[in-house]
Amino acid sequence: MTTPEPSATLVVLDLVGIFVFAISGALVAVRKELDVFGVLVLAGVTGLGGGFLRDVLIDAAPPAALEDWRYLMVPVAAGLVTFLYHPALGRMERLVNVFDAFGLALFCVAGALKAVDYGLGPLPAALLGMTTGIGGGMMRDVLAGRVPVIFRGELYATPALAGALVAVMLDRADVPYGLAAAAGATVCLVWRLLSMWRGWQAPVPRGSASV
Amino acid sequence: MTTPEPSATLVVLDLVGIFVFAISGALVAVRKELDVFGVLVLAGVTGLGGGFLRDVLIDAAPPAALEDWRYLMVPVAAGLVTFLYHPALGRMERLVNVFDAFGLALFCVAGALKAVDYGLGPLPAALLGMTTGIGGGMMRDVLAGRVPVIFRGELYATPALAGALVAVMLDRADVPYGLAAAAGATVCLVWRLLSMWRGWQAPVPRGSASV
Amino acid sequence: MTTPEPSATLVVLDLVGIFVFAISGALVAVRKELDVFGVLVLAGVTGLGGGFLRDVLIDAAPPAALEDWRYLMVPVAAGLVTFLYHPALGRMERLVNVFDAFGLALFCVAGALKAVDYGLGPLPAALLGMTTGIGGGMMRDVLAGRVPVIFRGELYATPALAGALVAVMLDRADVPYGLAAAAGATVCLVWRLLSMWRGWQAPVPRGSASV
Repeated sequence: MTTPEPSATLVVLDLVGIFVFAISGALVAVRKELDVFGVLVLAGVTGLGGGFLRDVLIDAAPPAALEDWRYLMVPVAAGLVTFLYHPALGRMERLVNVFDAFGLALFCVAGALKAVDYGLGPLPAALLGMTTGIGGGMMRDVLAGRVPVIFRGELYATPALAGALVAVMLDRADVPYGLAAAAGATVCLVWRLLSMWRGWQAPVPRGSASV
Repeated sequence: MTTPEPSATLVVLDLVGIFVFAISGALVAVRKELDVFGVLVLAGVTGLGGGFLRDVLIDAAPPAALEDWRYLMVPVAAGLVTFLYHPALGRMERLVNVFDAFGLALFCVAGALKAVDYGLGPLPAALLGMTTGIGGGMMRDVLAGRVPVIFRGELYATPALAGALVAVMLDRADVPYGLAAAAGATVCLVWRLLSMWRGWQAPVPRGSASV
Repeated sequence: MTTPEPSATLVVLDLVGIFVFAISGALVAVRKELDVFGVLVLAGVTGLGGGFLRDVLIDAAPPAALEDWRYLMVPVAAGLVTFLYHPALGRMERLVNVFDAFGLALFCVAGALKAVDYGLGPLPAALLGMTTGIGGGMMRDVLAGRVPVIFRGELYATPALAGALVAVMLDRADVPYGLAAAAGATVCLVWRLLSMWRGWQAPVPRGSASV
């Protein structure tokens, strides 16, 4: 989730993103009535899974999170907080979703720019950025025994792909790194928040699905 | 999905295989009433997942598909075609299954020979060839929330393993590469088509399953 | 699943662990009424999946099991035995669970010490040890279409994490390798067996889960 010399600001943003994603994973586990270990695993998988998937695919193993204990402690903290205070967190779900949008914006841009650093072209890099943003949530849903919610109409992956593409394209046009990242993250964040507030939906196939 | 200097023919065959696999993934998504993004993801995962899994396991990362935009565009095209014309495709399922058998034959042989190129022994290489052929479909089913259909009686993995073994063994016996590949693919294809037409089934355990 | 020059004893123990894990996977497949191929795949995934996951994450690809045919034959044997004799095995489930505890103890320690050899710090190494022990069972459950059983109250992952931590810490304190491994494995084994016999459960979240 980091590029060669990440600034302190970037690391903090990254950890906040992991924390918020991990809370979403832990809330799913609580609702499925899993035990404390299930809560911690879903927190960890949701917070770190997207980055792990990206690192394995671009051969940046071992994933950064395995070499920095802060990346491991943050999902544990998120899991324990959720385990203890889930009724309160459940009532703040709207707020959690706003933070989650920030996490998505950060992850898609950071993931895409890391893939560029590892030599991938613009399109694959943008797809890996999107994967970094949505991968953890997909693993969460598979482990919790449900079809990934991002396949069910809500606009979630499209903003991530758009933000990643913007960041990669600006970076390619020699726009300074920080500016390219900020522009991409803003595109993703604004689109995602607007989708949530306006209830925008992705189109579904028309007509009956013949079996 | 490619060996060092793949001929144009091989690339075309490979892309056709990905296209057909991707259509099978997109059809599952349509039947599960997923949105357009779910359709595209299941198309991509089904078309490319087996090759990704193989490349990660033999440490050939980043997977070839991430370095060649054609490999990424083909599942997108298959997904969009299915999204728009799924009623017609659903009616042609038998034809889709025949193409799918061609895809399986190609993937199992190409995957096995790539594993040999990366230094694996004959048996692991054949298993990775089979994995290349069936991995995408397994990921499709897990993401769609169902037990992989290839565990449910239909003969699908066995022909893939047989074809991969034939190709690897002939390659080891210094038979020219193209001939070894063609022989292996033929074994897989004929066996798979015969199974479909005759309704051959894999054996299931006998007796009640004590819980 | 092996360190640089594994002794014959270690290899035998490792193969026994894979065999027992593979039987647990095959039994799940039989109960889900999968065909013989499904039984073999679930046997292989359960026996080898945890080690594959670890090797991919620490970039020790290709996984050791792909370079040693014995590691591939053991799950096949376990799958065939279960396919043929599952009623008898089902009646011996308590015994299978005891062997499974031995497998868990072995895998968590061997996985953690291998991660140390690959340069990971103590905490990530212990987590990877736990992952080696529980990863195969999690994949088994996802492929069989159920939420991983280890999220459902039974104490399984905690003993694995504790055993891995003990082994890593003693190894760091320059305790001889064999002694560190034995101590870690004993901690895991005793804790797991006691949990089984006393019916210890992991805590679950309190209060209703607001949706």
